[in-house]
Amino acid sequence: MLFLETSKVIRKSKEEILRILVCNDDGIYSPGIFALAESLKAIGEVTVVAPQQEQSAVGHAITMQIPLRVTKSFKNGEFFGYAVNGTPADCVKIGIRNLMDTPPDLVVSGINHGSNTAINIIYSGTVSAAREAAIMDVPAMAVSVTNHAVTDFKFAAKVSKLLAAEINHREIPKGTLLNVNVPDVPPEQIEGIMLTKQGKSKWDDIYEQRIDPFGKDYFWLTGKLIEIDKEVEFDQVAIKKNYVSVSPIHFDLTDYDTFEKMKTWHIEGILNGRH
Amino acid sequence: MLFLETSKVIRKSKEEILRILVCNDDGIYSPGIFALAESLKAIGEVTVVAPQQEQSAVGHAITMQIPLRVTKSFKNGEFFGYAVNGTPADCVKIGIRNLMDTPPDLVVSGINHGSNTAINIIYSGTVSAAREAAIMDVPAMAVSVTNHAVTDFKFAAKVSKLLAAEINHREIPKGTLLNVNVPDVPPEQIEGIMLTKQGKSKWDDIYEQRIDPFGKDYFWLTGKLIEIDKEVEFDQVAIKKNYVSVSPIHFDLTDYDTFEKMKTWHIEGILNGRH
Repeated sequence: MLFLETSKVIRKSKEEILRILVCNDDGIYSPGIFALAESLKAIGEVTVVAPQQEQSAVGHAITMQIPLRVTKSFKNGEFFGYAVNGTPADCVKIGIRNLMDTPPDLVVSGINHGSNTAINIIYSGTVSAAREAAIMDVPAMAVSVTNHAVTDFKFAAKVSKLLAAEINHREIPKGTLLNVNVPDVPPEQIEGIMLTKQGKSKWDDIYEQRIDPFGKDYFWLTGKLIEIDKEVEFDQVAIKKNYVSVSPIHFDLTDYDTFEKMKTWHIEGILNGRH
Repeated sequence: MLFLETSKVIRKSKEEILRILVCNDDGIYSPGIFALAESLKAIGEVTVVAPQQEQSAVGHAITMQIPLRVTKSFKNGEFFGYAVNGTPADCVKIGIRNLMDTPPDLVVSGINHGSNTAINIIYSGTVSAAREAAIMDVPAMAVSVTNHAVTDFKFAAKVSKLLAAEINHREIPKGTLLNVNVPDVPPEQIEGIMLTKQGKSKWDDIYEQRIDPFGKDYFWLTGKLIEIDKEVEFDQVAIKKNYVSVSPIHFDLTDYDTFEKMKTWHIEGILNGRH
Protein backbone atom coordinates (compact mmCIF):
# COMPACT_ATOMS: atom_id res chain seq x y z
CA MET A 1 0.00 0.00 0.00
CA LEU A 2 0.98 3.62 -0.44
CA PHE A 3 0.69 6.14 2.35
CA LEU A 4 0.40 9.84 2.05
CA GLU A 5 2.27 11.99 4.54
CA THR A 6 -0.12 14.20 6.49
CA SER A 7 1.90 16.84 8.24
CA LYS A 8 -0.21 19.91 7.88
CA VAL A 9 -1.02 21.58 11.17
CA ILE A 10 -4.78 21.55 11.48
CA ARG A 11 -6.28 24.94 12.14
CA LYS A 12 -9.73 25.06 13.66
CA SER A 13 -9.91 28.76 12.93
CA LYS A 14 -7.35 31.33 11.88
CA GLU A 15 -5.88 31.45 15.38
CA GLU A 16 -6.83 28.14 16.91
CA ILE A 17 -4.96 24.99 16.06
CA LEU A 18 -5.98 21.46 16.98
CA ARG A 19 -5.15 20.75 20.62
CA ILE A 20 -4.45 17.14 21.51
CA LEU A 21 -4.01 15.49 24.92
CA VAL A 22 -1.84 12.39 24.73
CA CYS A 23 -1.93 9.68 27.40
CA ASN A 24 -1.10 5.97 27.73
CA ASP A 25 -0.91 3.12 30.22
CA ASP A 26 2.66 1.96 29.64
CA GLY A 27 3.95 5.07 31.39
CA ILE A 28 5.42 8.37 30.29
CA TYR A 29 8.84 6.83 29.60
CA SER A 30 7.45 4.29 27.13
CA PRO A 31 8.67 4.59 23.51
CA GLY A 32 5.07 4.22 22.30
CA ILE A 33 3.89 7.50 23.79
CA PHE A 34 6.98 9.29 22.51
CA ALA A 35 6.35 8.11 18.93
CA LEU A 36 2.68 9.07 19.23
CA ALA A 37 3.35 12.56 20.59
CA GLU A 38 6.00 13.25 17.96
CA SER A 39 3.71 12.16 15.15
CA LEU A 40 0.73 14.19 16.38
CA LYS A 41 2.85 17.34 16.72
CA ALA A 42 2.77 17.48 12.92
CA ILE A 43 -0.96 18.24 12.97
CA GLY A 44 -1.53 20.06 16.26
CA GLU A 45 -0.43 21.21 19.68
CA VAL A 46 0.28 18.24 21.92
CA THR A 47 0.06 18.04 25.72
CA VAL A 48 1.32 14.80 27.25
CA VAL A 49 -0.14 13.66 30.58
CA ALA A 50 0.76 10.07 31.43
CA PRO A 51 1.35 7.73 34.35
CA GLN A 52 4.72 7.87 36.03
CA GLN A 53 4.84 4.08 36.01
CA GLU A 54 3.41 1.29 33.92
CA GLN A 55 -0.31 0.83 34.56
CA SER A 56 -1.25 -2.07 32.31
CA ALA A 57 -4.49 -3.94 33.07
CA VAL A 58 -5.65 -1.35 35.58
CA GLY A 59 -8.89 -1.00 33.63
CA HIS A 60 -10.86 2.11 34.47
CA ALA A 61 -9.43 2.50 37.96
CA ILE A 62 -9.30 6.00 39.40
CA THR A 63 -7.35 7.19 42.43
CA MET A 64 -9.37 8.52 45.34
CA GLN A 65 -7.72 7.22 48.50
CA ILE A 66 -4.43 9.01 47.96
CA PRO A 67 -3.68 12.39 46.41
CA LEU A 68 -2.21 12.77 42.96
CA ARG A 69 1.18 14.32 42.32
CA VAL A 70 2.17 15.88 39.03
CA THR A 71 5.79 16.27 37.95
CA LYS A 72 7.31 17.57 34.75
CA SER A 73 9.03 15.01 32.61
CA PHE A 74 11.87 15.76 30.19
CA LYS A 75 13.20 14.00 27.13
CA ASN A 76 16.53 14.93 25.54
CA GLY A 77 16.67 17.97 27.80
CA GLU A 78 13.28 19.31 26.65
CA PHE A 79 9.96 19.35 28.47
CA PHE A 80 7.99 16.34 27.24
CA GLY A 81 4.93 16.13 29.44
CA TYR A 82 3.33 15.74 32.87
CA ALA A 83 3.92 12.54 34.82
CA VAL A 84 1.14 11.58 37.26
CA ASN A 85 1.37 9.03 40.10
CA GLY A 86 -1.97 7.56 39.06
CA THR A 87 -3.88 5.57 36.49
CA PRO A 88 -4.49 6.39 32.81
CA ALA A 89 -8.04 7.58 33.66
CA ASP A 90 -6.60 9.84 36.38
CA CYS A 91 -4.20 11.36 33.85
CA VAL A 92 -7.00 12.26 31.45
CA LYS A 93 -9.18 13.65 34.25
CA ILE A 94 -6.49 15.85 35.78
CA GLY A 95 -5.09 16.76 32.37
CA ILE A 96 -8.42 18.10 31.19
CA ARG A 97 -9.50 19.61 34.52
CA ASN A 98 -6.29 21.13 35.82
CA LEU A 99 -3.32 20.96 33.48
CA MET A 100 -4.83 22.30 30.27
CA ASP A 101 -6.40 25.76 30.17
CA THR A 102 -9.42 24.55 28.22
CA PRO A 103 -10.45 21.00 27.24
CA PRO A 104 -8.55 19.60 24.25
CA ASP A 105 -10.16 18.91 20.87
CA LEU A 106 -9.02 15.31 21.00
CA VAL A 107 -7.49 12.76 23.38
CA VAL A 108 -5.26 10.02 21.96
CA SER A 109 -4.12 7.18 24.23
CA GLY A 110 -1.23 4.92 23.34
CA ILE A 111 0.62 3.61 21.52
CA ASN A 112 0.14 0.50 23.60
CA HIS A 113 2.41 -2.52 23.55
CA GLY A 114 0.05 -5.40 22.78
CA SER A 115 -3.37 -5.53 21.18
CA ASN A 116 -6.51 -4.29 22.88
CA THR A 117 -9.18 -6.31 21.17
CA ALA A 118 -12.13 -8.47 22.25
CA ILE A 119 -12.33 -8.94 26.02
CA ASN A 120 -9.00 -7.16 26.56
CA ILE A 121 -10.77 -3.84 26.09
CA ILE A 122 -12.35 -4.36 29.51
CA TYR A 123 -9.00 -4.66 31.28
CA SER A 124 -7.09 -2.09 29.28
CA GLY A 125 -5.75 1.08 30.83
CA THR A 126 -5.06 2.48 27.35
CA VAL A 127 -8.68 2.14 26.31
CA SER A 128 -9.91 3.41 29.69
CA ALA A 129 -7.92 6.64 29.26
CA ALA A 130 -9.70 7.29 25.96
CA ARG A 131 -12.98 6.23 27.52
CA GLU A 132 -12.51 8.74 30.34
CA ALA A 133 -12.14 11.43 27.66
CA ALA A 134 -15.36 10.25 25.99
CA ILE A 135 -17.09 10.44 29.39
CA MET A 136 -15.88 14.04 29.55
CA ASP A 137 -17.36 14.68 26.08
CA VAL A 138 -13.97 14.95 24.37
CA PRO A 139 -13.49 12.95 21.12
CA ALA A 140 -11.00 10.19 21.82
CA MET A 141 -9.05 7.32 20.36
CA ALA A 142 -6.97 4.49 21.83
CA VAL A 143 -4.16 3.02 19.74
CA SER A 144 -2.36 -0.28 20.27
CA VAL A 145 0.06 -2.40 18.28
CA THR A 146 -0.41 -6.14 18.36
CA ASN A 147 3.06 -7.11 19.53
CA HIS A 148 4.31 -6.81 23.09
CA ALA A 149 7.91 -6.77 21.90
CA VAL A 150 7.39 -4.13 19.22
CA THR A 151 10.15 -1.57 18.91
CA ASP A 152 9.14 0.33 15.78
CA PHE A 153 6.07 2.49 16.35
CA LYS A 154 6.49 4.50 13.15
CA PHE A 155 3.66 3.02 11.17
CA ALA A 156 1.23 2.97 14.12
CA ALA A 157 2.16 6.60 14.84
CA LYS A 158 1.40 7.53 11.25
CA VAL A 159 -1.96 5.74 11.37
CA SER A 160 -2.73 7.58 14.61
CA LYS A 161 -2.05 10.90 12.93
CA LEU A 162 -4.22 10.08 9.91
CA LEU A 163 -7.10 8.93 12.11
CA ALA A 164 -6.75 11.93 14.44
CA ALA A 165 -7.11 14.20 11.42
CA GLU A 166 -10.11 12.15 10.27
CA ILE A 167 -11.85 12.30 13.65
CA ASN A 168 -11.32 16.02 13.71
CA HIS A 169 -13.39 16.67 10.62
CA ARG A 170 -16.05 14.04 11.42
CA GLU A 171 -18.90 14.06 13.87
CA ILE A 172 -18.35 11.38 16.52
CA PRO A 173 -21.29 11.12 18.93
CA LYS A 174 -20.49 12.28 22.44
CA GLY A 175 -19.62 9.28 24.56
CA THR A 176 -18.19 7.24 21.70
CA LEU A 177 -14.49 6.60 21.23
CA LEU A 178 -12.45 4.75 18.63
CA ASN A 179 -10.42 1.73 19.60
CA VAL A 180 -7.62 1.25 17.08
CA ASN A 181 -5.35 -1.79 16.76
CA VAL A 182 -2.43 -1.86 14.36
CA PRO A 183 -0.88 -5.17 13.26
CA ASP A 184 2.85 -5.38 13.90
CA VAL A 185 3.91 -6.17 10.35
CA PRO A 186 5.92 -4.16 7.82
CA PRO A 187 3.69 -1.41 6.35
CA GLU A 188 3.70 -3.02 2.91
CA GLN A 189 1.98 -6.08 4.39
CA ILE A 190 -0.90 -4.01 5.82
CA GLU A 191 -4.09 -4.91 3.94
CA GLY A 192 -5.91 -1.68 4.81
CA ILE A 193 -8.17 -0.26 7.51
CA MET A 194 -11.22 -2.18 8.66
CA LEU A 195 -14.22 -0.84 10.58
CA THR A 196 -14.80 -3.49 13.27
CA LYS A 197 -16.81 -4.60 16.30
CA GLN A 198 -15.45 -5.79 19.64
CA GLY A 199 -14.72 -9.50 19.29
CA LYS A 200 -16.06 -12.24 21.57
CA SER A 201 -12.72 -13.96 22.15
CA LYS A 202 -11.90 -14.57 25.81
CA TRP A 203 -9.06 -15.70 28.03
CA ASP A 204 -8.72 -19.17 29.34
CA ASP A 205 -7.14 -18.06 32.60
CA ILE A 206 -4.72 -20.21 34.50
CA TYR A 207 -3.23 -19.30 37.85
CA GLU A 208 0.16 -20.92 38.13
CA GLN A 209 0.53 -22.02 41.71
CA ARG A 210 4.11 -21.73 42.97
CA ILE A 211 5.92 -21.84 46.29
CA ASP A 212 8.01 -18.90 47.49
CA PRO A 213 11.43 -19.19 49.20
CA PHE A 214 9.61 -19.21 52.56
CA GLY A 215 7.44 -22.18 51.68
CA LYS A 216 4.28 -20.20 51.06
CA ASP A 217 1.95 -20.49 48.05
CA TYR A 218 1.52 -17.75 45.54
CA PHE A 219 -0.49 -17.55 42.32
CA TRP A 220 0.47 -15.94 39.06
CA LEU A 221 -2.08 -15.13 36.37
CA THR A 222 -1.39 -16.53 32.95
CA GLY A 223 -3.54 -18.07 30.25
CA LYS A 224 -4.32 -18.07 26.58
CA LEU A 225 -6.76 -16.14 24.43
CA ILE A 226 -9.39 -18.47 23.02
CA GLU A 227 -10.14 -17.02 19.61
CA ILE A 228 -13.77 -17.70 18.88
CA ASP A 229 -14.36 -14.89 16.38
CA LYS A 230 -14.55 -15.89 12.74
CA GLU A 231 -15.60 -12.87 10.69
CA VAL A 232 -13.24 -10.08 9.74
CA GLU A 233 -15.69 -7.50 11.08
CA PHE A 234 -14.47 -8.47 14.58
CA ASP A 235 -11.36 -6.66 15.79
CA GLN A 236 -9.54 -9.83 16.74
CA VAL A 237 -9.91 -11.31 13.25
CA ALA A 238 -9.15 -8.07 11.41
CA ILE A 239 -5.72 -7.70 13.02
CA LYS A 240 -4.91 -11.34 12.29
CA LYS A 241 -5.62 -10.64 8.64
CA ASN A 242 -3.26 -7.63 8.76
CA TYR A 243 -5.95 -4.96 8.79
CA VAL A 244 -5.76 -1.93 11.01
CA SER A 245 -8.87 -2.40 13.16
CA VAL A 246 -11.03 0.61 14.11
CA SER A 247 -13.96 -0.05 16.48
CA PRO A 248 -16.40 2.54 17.78
CA ILE A 249 -17.09 1.72 21.43
CA HIS A 250 -19.00 3.44 24.22
CA PHE A 251 -19.72 3.25 27.94
CA ASP A 252 -23.44 2.63 27.91
CA LEU A 253 -23.37 -0.85 29.39
CA THR A 254 -27.13 -1.42 29.38
CA ASP A 255 -28.04 -4.70 27.71
CA TYR A 256 -31.15 -3.43 25.92
CA ASP A 257 -32.19 -6.85 24.57
CA THR A 258 -32.18 -8.34 28.05
CA PHE A 259 -33.89 -5.22 29.39
CA GLU A 260 -36.80 -5.93 27.04
CA LYS A 261 -36.85 -9.65 27.83
CA MET A 262 -36.74 -9.06 31.58
CA LYS A 263 -40.02 -7.16 31.40
CA THR A 264 -41.65 -10.62 31.33
CA TRP A 265 -39.99 -11.46 34.68
CA HIS A 266 -42.20 -8.91 36.44
CA ILE A 267 -39.52 -8.45 39.06
CA GLU A 268 -41.67 -5.84 40.77
CA GLY A 269 -43.52 -8.81 42.27
CA ILE A 270 -40.48 -10.29 43.99
CA LEU A 271 -40.72 -8.09 47.07
CA ASN A 272 -44.37 -8.95 47.50
CA GLY A 273 -43.58 -12.57 48.07
CA ARG A 274 -44.32 -14.00 44.67
CA HIS A 275 -41.95 -16.86 45.48
CA MET B 1 -44.76 -3.17 51.49
CA LEU B 2 -44.76 -6.73 52.74
CA PHE B 3 -41.84 -9.04 52.31
CA LEU B 4 -41.87 -12.79 52.28
CA GLU B 5 -38.99 -14.60 53.94
CA THR B 6 -37.20 -16.86 51.47
CA SER B 7 -35.02 -19.24 53.40
CA LYS B 8 -35.44 -22.47 51.57
CA VAL B 9 -32.17 -23.96 50.41
CA ILE B 10 -32.37 -24.18 46.62
CA ARG B 11 -31.63 -27.62 45.28
CA LYS B 12 -30.58 -27.88 41.67
CA SER B 13 -31.04 -31.65 41.84
CA LYS B 14 -31.52 -34.10 44.68
CA GLU B 15 -27.87 -33.86 45.66
CA GLU B 16 -26.77 -30.52 44.31
CA ILE B 17 -27.61 -27.32 46.07
CA LEU B 18 -27.12 -23.83 44.71
CA ARG B 19 -23.46 -22.83 44.97
CA ILE B 20 -22.77 -19.11 45.30
CA LEU B 21 -19.47 -17.22 45.16
CA VAL B 22 -19.61 -13.97 47.12
CA CYS B 23 -17.19 -11.11 46.49
CA ASN B 24 -17.02 -7.33 47.01
CA ASP B 25 -14.75 -4.33 46.67
CA ASP B 26 -14.96 -2.93 50.19
CA GLY B 27 -12.82 -5.83 51.43
CA ILE B 28 -13.47 -9.08 53.27
CA TYR B 29 -13.81 -7.30 56.64
CA SER B 30 -16.63 -5.06 55.45
CA PRO B 31 -20.02 -5.49 57.15
CA GLY B 32 -21.73 -5.49 53.75
CA ILE B 33 -20.17 -8.75 52.59
CA PHE B 34 -20.88 -10.36 55.93
CA ALA B 35 -24.58 -9.47 55.72
CA LEU B 36 -24.71 -10.69 52.12
CA ALA B 37 -23.01 -14.02 52.84
CA GLU B 38 -25.20 -14.68 55.87
CA SER B 39 -28.36 -13.95 53.89
CA LEU B 40 -27.39 -16.13 50.92
CA LYS B 41 -26.55 -19.07 53.19
CA ALA B 42 -30.29 -19.46 53.62
CA ILE B 43 -30.66 -20.52 50.00
CA GLY B 44 -27.36 -22.14 49.11
CA GLU B 45 -23.75 -22.98 49.80
CA VAL B 46 -21.66 -19.82 49.99
CA THR B 47 -17.95 -19.39 49.24
CA VAL B 48 -16.52 -15.98 50.06
CA VAL B 49 -13.49 -14.73 48.09
CA ALA B 50 -12.83 -11.04 48.62
CA PRO B 51 -10.04 -8.46 48.65
CA GLN B 52 -7.91 -8.24 51.77
CA GLN B 53 -8.21 -4.46 51.63
CA GLU B 54 -10.68 -1.93 50.31
CA GLN B 55 -10.57 -1.71 46.51
CA SER B 56 -13.15 0.95 45.69
CA ALA B 57 -12.95 2.62 42.27
CA VAL B 58 -10.44 0.11 40.97
CA GLY B 59 -12.74 -0.62 38.05
CA HIS B 60 -11.96 -3.80 36.19
CA ALA B 61 -8.29 -3.84 37.16
CA ILE B 62 -6.58 -7.23 37.32
CA THR B 63 -3.25 -8.06 38.90
CA MET B 64 -0.54 -9.34 36.59
CA GLN B 65 2.71 -7.70 37.71
CA ILE B 66 2.76 -9.28 41.15
CA PRO B 67 1.57 -12.68 42.33
CA LEU B 68 -1.62 -13.17 44.29
CA ARG B 69 -1.68 -14.50 47.82
CA VAL B 70 -4.67 -16.19 49.36
CA THR B 71 -5.23 -16.38 53.11
CA LYS B 72 -8.09 -17.77 55.14
CA SER B 73 -10.19 -15.22 56.96
CA PHE B 74 -12.13 -15.92 60.14
CA LYS B 75 -15.13 -14.27 61.77
CA ASN B 76 -16.18 -15.03 65.33
CA GLY B 77 -13.69 -17.91 65.36
CA GLU B 78 -15.19 -19.57 62.27
CA PHE B 79 -13.83 -19.75 58.74
CA PHE B 80 -15.54 -17.00 56.77
CA GLY B 81 -13.76 -16.89 53.41
CA TYR B 82 -10.63 -16.38 51.34
CA ALA B 83 -8.86 -13.01 51.43
CA VAL B 84 -6.89 -12.12 48.31
CA ASN B 85 -4.26 -9.36 47.96
CA GLY B 86 -5.84 -8.24 44.72
CA THR B 87 -8.78 -6.58 43.03
CA PRO B 88 -12.43 -7.67 42.98
CA ALA B 89 -11.98 -9.07 39.45
CA ASP B 90 -8.91 -11.03 40.65
CA CYS B 91 -10.99 -12.54 43.46
CA VAL B 92 -13.66 -13.80 41.08
CA LYS B 93 -11.08 -15.17 38.64
CA ILE B 94 -9.04 -17.05 41.24
CA GLY B 95 -12.16 -18.07 43.16
CA ILE B 96 -13.66 -19.73 40.11
CA ARG B 97 -10.39 -21.08 38.67
CA ASN B 98 -8.58 -22.28 41.78
CA LEU B 99 -10.50 -22.04 45.03
CA MET B 100 -13.78 -23.71 44.07
CA ASP B 101 -13.81 -27.28 42.77
CA THR B 102 -16.24 -26.43 39.97
CA PRO B 103 -17.61 -23.05 38.85
CA PRO B 104 -20.43 -21.69 41.04
CA ASP B 105 -24.02 -21.36 39.86
CA LEU B 106 -24.01 -17.68 40.74
CA VAL B 107 -21.66 -14.87 41.75
CA VAL B 108 -22.98 -12.07 43.96
CA SER B 109 -20.80 -9.02 44.60
CA GLY B 110 -21.47 -6.59 47.43
CA ILE B 111 -23.12 -5.27 49.41
CA ASN B 112 -21.36 -2.06 48.43
CA HIS B 113 -21.36 1.11 50.50
CA GLY B 114 -22.64 3.74 48.06
CA SER B 115 -24.69 3.49 44.89
CA ASN B 116 -23.31 2.14 41.64
CA THR B 117 -25.52 3.83 39.11
CA ALA B 118 -25.01 5.81 35.90
CA ILE B 119 -21.34 6.53 35.16
CA ASN B 120 -20.24 5.05 38.50
CA ILE B 121 -20.67 1.57 37.02
CA ILE B 122 -17.55 2.20 34.96
CA TYR B 123 -15.37 2.87 38.01
CA SER B 124 -16.90 0.32 40.36
CA GLY B 125 -14.96 -2.63 41.66
CA THR B 126 -18.20 -4.20 42.92
CA VAL B 127 -19.73 -4.20 39.46
CA SER B 128 -16.46 -5.34 37.87
CA ALA B 129 -16.38 -8.42 40.10
CA ALA B 130 -19.82 -9.42 38.85
CA ARG B 131 -18.80 -8.52 35.31
CA GLU B 132 -15.75 -10.79 35.57
CA ALA B 133 -18.14 -13.62 36.48
CA ALA B 134 -20.30 -12.79 33.45
CA ILE B 135 -17.17 -12.88 31.28
CA MET B 136 -16.58 -16.37 32.70
CA ASP B 137 -20.14 -17.36 31.74
CA VAL B 138 -21.38 -17.49 35.35
CA PRO B 139 -24.66 -15.67 36.14
CA ALA B 140 -23.87 -12.69 38.32
CA MET B 141 -25.27 -9.78 40.25
CA ALA B 142 -23.74 -6.70 41.92
CA VAL B 143 -25.55 -5.17 44.89
CA SER B 144 -25.05 -1.70 46.38
CA VAL B 145 -26.86 0.46 48.91
CA THR B 146 -27.12 4.15 48.19
CA ASN B 147 -25.58 5.44 51.38
CA HIS B 148 -21.87 5.48 52.15
CA ALA B 149 -22.56 5.63 55.88
CA VAL B 150 -25.09 2.79 55.93
CA THR B 151 -24.84 0.44 58.85
CA ASP B 152 -27.91 -1.73 58.39
CA PHE B 153 -27.60 -4.07 55.42
CA LYS B 154 -30.56 -6.26 56.43
CA PHE B 155 -32.99 -5.13 53.78
CA ALA B 156 -30.41 -5.07 50.98
CA ALA B 157 -29.29 -8.56 52.05
CA LYS B 158 -32.88 -9.78 51.85
CA VAL B 159 -33.34 -8.25 48.39
CA SER B 160 -30.08 -9.94 47.30
CA LYS B 161 -31.41 -13.29 48.43
CA LEU B 162 -34.73 -12.86 46.64
CA LEU B 163 -33.04 -11.78 43.42
CA ALA B 164 -30.47 -14.58 43.66
CA ALA B 165 -33.33 -17.06 43.86
CA GLU B 166 -35.00 -15.33 40.92
CA ILE B 167 -31.88 -15.39 38.73
CA ASN B 168 -31.48 -19.06 39.49
CA HIS B 169 -34.76 -20.05 37.91
CA ARG B 170 -34.52 -17.60 35.00
CA GLU B 171 -32.46 -17.67 31.86
CA ILE B 172 -29.97 -14.79 31.86
CA PRO B 173 -28.01 -14.58 28.61
CA LYS B 174 -24.33 -15.44 28.98
CA GLY B 175 -22.35 -12.25 29.37
CA THR B 176 -25.15 -10.31 31.04
CA LEU B 177 -25.18 -9.42 34.73
CA LEU B 178 -27.61 -7.61 36.96
CA ASN B 179 -26.62 -4.36 38.64
CA VAL B 180 -28.77 -3.84 41.72
CA ASN B 181 -29.03 -0.67 43.80
CA VAL B 182 -31.02 -0.53 47.02
CA PRO B 183 -32.15 2.81 48.48
CA ASP B 184 -31.05 3.34 52.05
CA VAL B 185 -34.48 3.97 53.54
CA PRO B 186 -36.56 1.97 56.01
CA PRO B 187 -38.11 -1.04 54.19
CA GLU B 188 -41.63 0.35 54.57
CA GLN B 189 -40.63 3.35 52.45
CA ILE B 190 -39.43 1.17 49.55
CA GLU B 191 -41.77 1.69 46.59
CA GLY B 192 -40.92 -1.59 44.88
CA ILE B 193 -38.44 -3.01 42.39
CA MET B 194 -37.84 -1.27 39.07
CA LEU B 195 -36.23 -2.70 35.94
CA THR B 196 -33.86 0.07 34.82
CA LYS B 197 -31.22 1.22 32.36
CA GLN B 198 -27.82 2.73 33.17
CA GLY B 199 -28.35 6.46 33.68
CA LYS B 200 -26.50 9.22 31.86
CA SER B 201 -25.60 11.24 34.97
CA LYS B 202 -21.93 12.15 35.23
CA TRP B 203 -19.45 13.64 37.67
CA ASP B 204 -18.37 17.21 37.58
CA ASP B 205 -14.86 16.44 38.79
CA ILE B 206 -12.82 18.87 40.78
CA TYR B 207 -9.25 18.30 41.85
CA GLU B 208 -8.64 20.18 45.05
CA GLN B 209 -5.14 21.54 44.84
CA ARG B 210 -3.39 21.61 48.22
CA ILE B 211 0.11 22.08 49.53
CA ASP B 212 1.80 19.39 51.62
CA PRO B 213 3.93 20.06 54.73
CA PHE B 214 6.98 20.15 52.48
CA GLY B 215 5.63 22.90 50.26
CA LYS B 216 4.74 20.65 47.36
CA ASP B 217 1.44 20.58 45.45
CA TYR B 218 -0.93 17.64 45.57
CA PHE B 219 -4.34 17.07 44.04
CA TRP B 220 -7.31 15.33 45.54
CA LEU B 221 -10.24 14.16 43.45
CA THR B 222 -13.64 15.37 44.53
CA GLY B 223 -16.71 16.57 42.67
CA LYS B 224 -20.43 16.28 42.39
CA LEU B 225 -22.73 14.02 40.39
CA ILE B 226 -24.65 16.05 37.84
CA GLU B 227 -28.00 14.32 37.66
CA ILE B 228 -29.24 14.66 34.12
CA ASP B 229 -31.59 11.65 34.07
CA LYS B 230 -35.28 12.39 34.31
CA GLU B 231 -37.22 9.16 33.75
CA VAL B 232 -37.63 6.52 36.41
CA GLU B 233 -36.43 3.85 33.98
CA PHE B 234 -32.90 5.14 34.63
CA ASP B 235 -31.14 3.66 37.66
CA GLN B 236 -30.21 7.02 39.13
CA VAL B 237 -33.82 8.23 39.14
CA ALA B 238 -35.30 4.94 40.36
CA ILE B 239 -33.23 4.95 43.55
CA LYS B 240 -34.11 8.58 44.21
CA LYS B 241 -37.77 7.59 44.06
CA ASN B 242 -37.11 4.79 46.57
CA TYR B 243 -37.24 1.93 44.10
CA VAL B 244 -34.78 -0.94 44.18
CA SER B 245 -33.10 -0.58 40.77
CA VAL B 246 -32.22 -3.66 38.71
CA SER B 247 -30.31 -3.07 35.45
CA PRO B 248 -29.15 -5.75 33.03
CA ILE B 249 -25.69 -4.75 31.80
CA HIS B 250 -23.07 -6.42 29.64
CA PHE B 251 -19.50 -6.02 28.40
CA ASP B 252 -20.07 -5.70 24.68
CA LEU B 253 -18.86 -2.13 24.32
CA THR B 254 -19.42 -1.86 20.56
CA ASP B 255 -21.43 1.23 19.68
CA TYR B 256 -23.52 -0.38 16.93
CA ASP B 257 -25.25 2.84 15.86
CA THR B 258 -21.92 4.55 15.29
CA PHE B 259 -20.57 1.41 13.62
CA GLU B 260 -23.35 1.73 11.02
CA LYS B 261 -22.86 5.48 10.63
CA MET B 262 -19.09 5.16 10.26
CA LYS B 263 -19.55 3.01 7.16
CA THR B 264 -20.11 6.32 5.33
CA TRP B 265 -16.64 7.51 6.43
CA HIS B 266 -14.99 4.91 4.17
CA ILE B 267 -12.01 4.84 6.51
CA GLU B 268 -10.41 2.19 4.32
CA GLY B 269 -9.42 5.11 2.09
CA ILE B 270 -7.42 6.94 4.75
CA LEU B 271 -4.25 4.94 4.24
CA ASN B 272 -4.37 5.54 0.51
CA GLY B 273 -3.97 9.25 0.94
CA ARG B 274 -7.55 10.37 0.57
CA HIS B 275 -6.66 13.45 2.60
